[in-house]
Amino acid sequence: MPQHTPEISETGQCTECNGADSLLATLVASGVEVCFANPGTSEMHFVSALDRIPGMRGVLCLFEGVATGAADGYARMTGKPACTLLHLGPGFANGMANLHNARKGQSPVVNVVGDHATYHVRYDAPLTSNVEGFAEAISHWVRRPRSPRTVALDAAEAVRAARVAPGQVATLILPADTAWLPAERPAPALEAPKPAPVFPDAIDAAAKALTNGKKTAILMRGSVLYGEGLNAAGCVAAKTGATLFCDTFTPRMRSGAGTPVVERLPYRGKDVLARLDEFEQLLLVGAEPPVSFFAYPGQESWLTPPHCAILTLAHPSEDGNAALIDLASSVDASPDCAMYPLDPPSLPGDGPLTAEAALRIVAALLPENAIVTDEGITSTLPYANLLATAAPHDYLALTGGAIGGILPLSTGAAVAAPDRKVVCLEGDGSAMYTVQALWTQARENLDVVTVLYANRSYAVLNQELKMVRAAAGGDKAVSLLDLHDPSLDWVRIAEGMGVEAVSVDTTQDFAEALRAALSAKGPRLIEAVI
Amino acid sequence: MPQHTPEISETGQCTECNGADSLLATLVASGVEVCFANPGTSEMHFVSALDRIPGMRGVLCLFEGVATGAADGYARMTGKPACTLLHLGPGFANGMANLHNARKGQSPVVNVVGDHATYHVRYDAPLTSNVEGFAEAISHWVRRPRSPRTVALDAAEAVRAARVAPGQVATLILPADTAWLPAERPAPALEAPKPAPVFPDAIDAAAKALTNGKKTAILMRGSVLYGEGLNAAGCVAAKTGATLFCDTFTPRMRSGAGTPVVERLPYRGKDVLARLDEFEQLLLVGAEPPVSFFAYPGQESWLTPPHCAILTLAHPSEDGNAALIDLASSVDASPDCAMYPLDPPSLPGDGPLTAEAALRIVAALLPENAIVTDEGITSTLPYANLLATAAPHDYLALTGGAIGGILPLSTGAAVAAPDRKVVCLEGDGSAMYTVQALWTQARENLDVVTVLYANRSYAVLNQELKMVRAAAGGDKAVSLLDLHDPSLDWVRIAEGMGVEAVSVDTTQDFAEALRAALSAKGPRLIEAVI
Repeated sequence: MPQHTPEISETGQCTECNGADSLLATLVASGVEVCFANPGTSEMHFVSALDRIPGMRGVLCLFEGVATGAADGYARMTGKPACTLLHLGPGFANGMANLHNARKGQSPVVNVVGDHATYHVRYDAPLTSNVEGFAEAISHWVRRPRSPRTVALDAAEAVRAARVAPGQVATLILPADTAWLPAERPAPALEAPKPAPVFPDAIDAAAKALTNGKKTAILMRGSVLYGEGLNAAGCVAAKTGATLFCDTFTPRMRSGAGTPVVERLPYRGKDVLARLDEFEQLLLVGAEPPVSFFAYPGQESWLTPPHCAILTLAHPSEDGNAALIDLASSVDASPDCAMYPLDPPSLPGDGPLTAEAALRIVAALLPENAIVTDEGITSTLPYANLLATAAPHDYLALTGGAIGGILPLSTGAAVAAPDRKVVCLEGDGSAMYTVQALWTQARENLDVVTVLYANRSYAVLNQELKMVRAAAGGDKAVSLLDLHDPSLDWVRIAEGMGVEAVSVDTTQDFAEALRAALSAKGPRLIEAVI
Repeated sequence: MPQHTPEISETGQCTECNGADSLLATLVASGVEVCFANPGTSEMHFVSALDRIPGMRGVLCLFEGVATGAADGYARMTGKPACTLLHLGPGFANGMANLHNARKGQSPVVNVVGDHATYHVRYDAPLTSNVEGFAEAISHWVRRPRSPRTVALDAAEAVRAARVAPGQVATLILPADTAWLPAERPAPALEAPKPAPVFPDAIDAAAKALTNGKKTAILMRGSVLYGEGLNAAGCVAAKTGATLFCDTFTPRMRSGAGTPVVERLPYRGKDVLARLDEFEQLLLVGAEPPVSFFAYPGQESWLTPPHCAILTLAHPSEDGNAALIDLASSVDASPDCAMYPLDPPSLPGDGPLTAEAALRIVAALLPENAIVTDEGITSTLPYANLLATAAPHDYLALTGGAIGGILPLSTGAAVAAPDRKVVCLEGDGSAMYTVQALWTQARENLDVVTVLYANRSYAVLNQELKMVRAAAGGDKAVSLLDLHDPSLDWVRIAEGMGVEAVSVDTTQDFAEALRAALSAKGPRLIEAVI
């Protein structure tokens, strides 16, 4: 193979570009700056191009689910896509669970999946698989260039597709020969459709509903939970008496001091129905009507009470932030209304560590403008309110229910926001799915403090098992939900991947460990034995 | 929920069975005895049924790729399917890479994937995904019962589908309500089609070819590499002067003392072409004609030389073992011909450990009838011949190229063959994909010795990068293939999951550590720093 030395002029003319060069230069031109990569042989030309085309940071991940989850976290904090680099069908498959989370979180992601050369697929070599079938099953947009001549435009369109509001998963399957053959010049960025403005009629209708004397819940999702519409929503609520809600699991929300009271819907469907029972109207802003996370015998899936009318202010693809600002002005809301004060919980007295005490300590010590990522489930959901009056922060939840999302998400969020501390609330069961993320945190010296709740079980499933059976579970069922025997030693696991770690089981030790971790720079893990 | 107390009479009548009971009882009746499980809420009725229906061993895996890879290993050693228990689309997705390996290894596997209740899917809850799309992209057979009335028959058909020769991936998507609603009695086992007998004409044609004076290569795959046809093949070769070959990566083969000389095809396509150049005829027994693992610019994908005629003795779905025995008799081969003697390599002198020295020591110390599993790639492939005169053993390779197959495969093989020592040859890069397998080995006290080659890189990719570029790689490309900074500490990682481990870097220490591990019972990991 000749050494390619591509040159790209200011007008985008490319000399000696191969498809990989052209693809990479196009991604960079389209604003993609980070590639979370787990490459293989079929991606080697792309890897090689990283040294020739400036502007792309490669972040190595030792499992593909780390790469896709990191891209999700990066997108949530920047609003723009990173790309992943994945190795054929099986590599893509390993990334699918976190692409599911990204999809449910409406995160823009561009996957570049290397595949066999176009002419090689028919030989059914060992790594041949139905890549398109895999990709189509999870992506909003899929393309497989058949020639290096189209790679640049295909890449520009992939980025545009990912950026369609509120965010999409776009997958470009790159046959190896389209990467190594001579290619056209890189393509310029394509403009992505912006969120559509909300019809004035919808704002009028919402304003009328909010002033008709009926009890109203406002359910919000997407950028309105951290954008300029959030304060407006708080002031609309203050003016009209409406109650603000968000989903149990929300991609990103601004939380803590200075934010309005936004109540999280409970996890259990029957609790949602009970909570919403008092409302006569449900106003949706970027959200869908609430549904049960799982179905249960004899319980409702649809959680809007029958007596509650549903009205939409903004669909997820519309500009909910602008709509909320207009709505605030329509109902004459004051622009300056009461928000949560800065009033972190006090530290608990010394004693055995509990999940509640741990989150109380996190809330007490949380630094200004941290990013809190949460997959603690039974260890965090019941106590999440402790964060309401903590220092202002962004809060990212597991959106698609595919556990194993948060260690990678935290990794990507830390890449996106290097000046902010990431505090990751994680359960031991969940952490095992994508534990490889710790290594990338160490390699990149990312500023992530992981609080690892060690309850030694799939705790939420023990609750579910009890719901299934009147009597106590038998040995075989219980053992399938239990993580004792052997207990995972998170200090060794983390240290084995290069992350400093400590294990604590009292409130005082946890507070000390957290203080130390927060004051240091770089990844730390605290095993919180509860 | 009422407590179900199903009773199943000898005639298969079921009283108080729900769908999960009926499914489980049917699987057991169909000969499925082990369930590699990573369950969630939607599988809770299946989990609960494990305590009511006898005959199924549940093995907890902390990542779905461990479950599917273990089912592959179990199938390779028993010839029959285990089932996996996976949680909705994302759980299935996490298992897909090792299902790809199972598919390429022709292993029978039955996946049970819990999904939302039939009526709940339309609400698009967070965990809703295109499960059928995922399943169809990788499985030979997919079914989604719409009613608990059909669950039993569907399960029996899933097992039959998995057992279709030479082995298939069958996926049963089980909506939660079909698990919890009252169901029909369990179904009896359905007979699976046996491997079809080879037409006598094909045996005659092969016999004629082998005696026509032309130089012949015999390429074998599947059960002929460990069944009763293997010795016959050796004697056919001895009689006719043909050369026996197997693929570079083969699902299972009998190897070591007492087996005939079966040469493994090289990994690189050009080496295969060069090796086969002398042959005029290629006789296939359960194998497909060789193709290049990857495509490279200007190199052939199709690796049968143009002057070499291809003849098929047995297709993969046919009874190659019987055909080889008939063939031996057709060519008047002696039933007693020379096989590899028991002549293990001598131990190397003390010195720094190398990949070759490590495999030499493994071969020297290998116990009788061990199971050797191999994903060592650059650390093992060049030296694999060292095992030829070791104690007789079974050798299992990574079949589909999806790395991260072997720790799970070893786990399943150990479950299948509790009286045999499993020696797992693994690279550090590959091990990270499914490292959670170590925990299951500890939990089940499985007799697996993992030799972890720590070369701190994706070594095979460094070779590939060199092929792509004339000059030395730049920093960014090289760093994406490098596993230093930080180095993985495999002793801590293994110990963190409950597996005893030691790190060595000299031949003497490695030999000592291996001796100790082989003489103990239960999982051990040796980090071989090379």
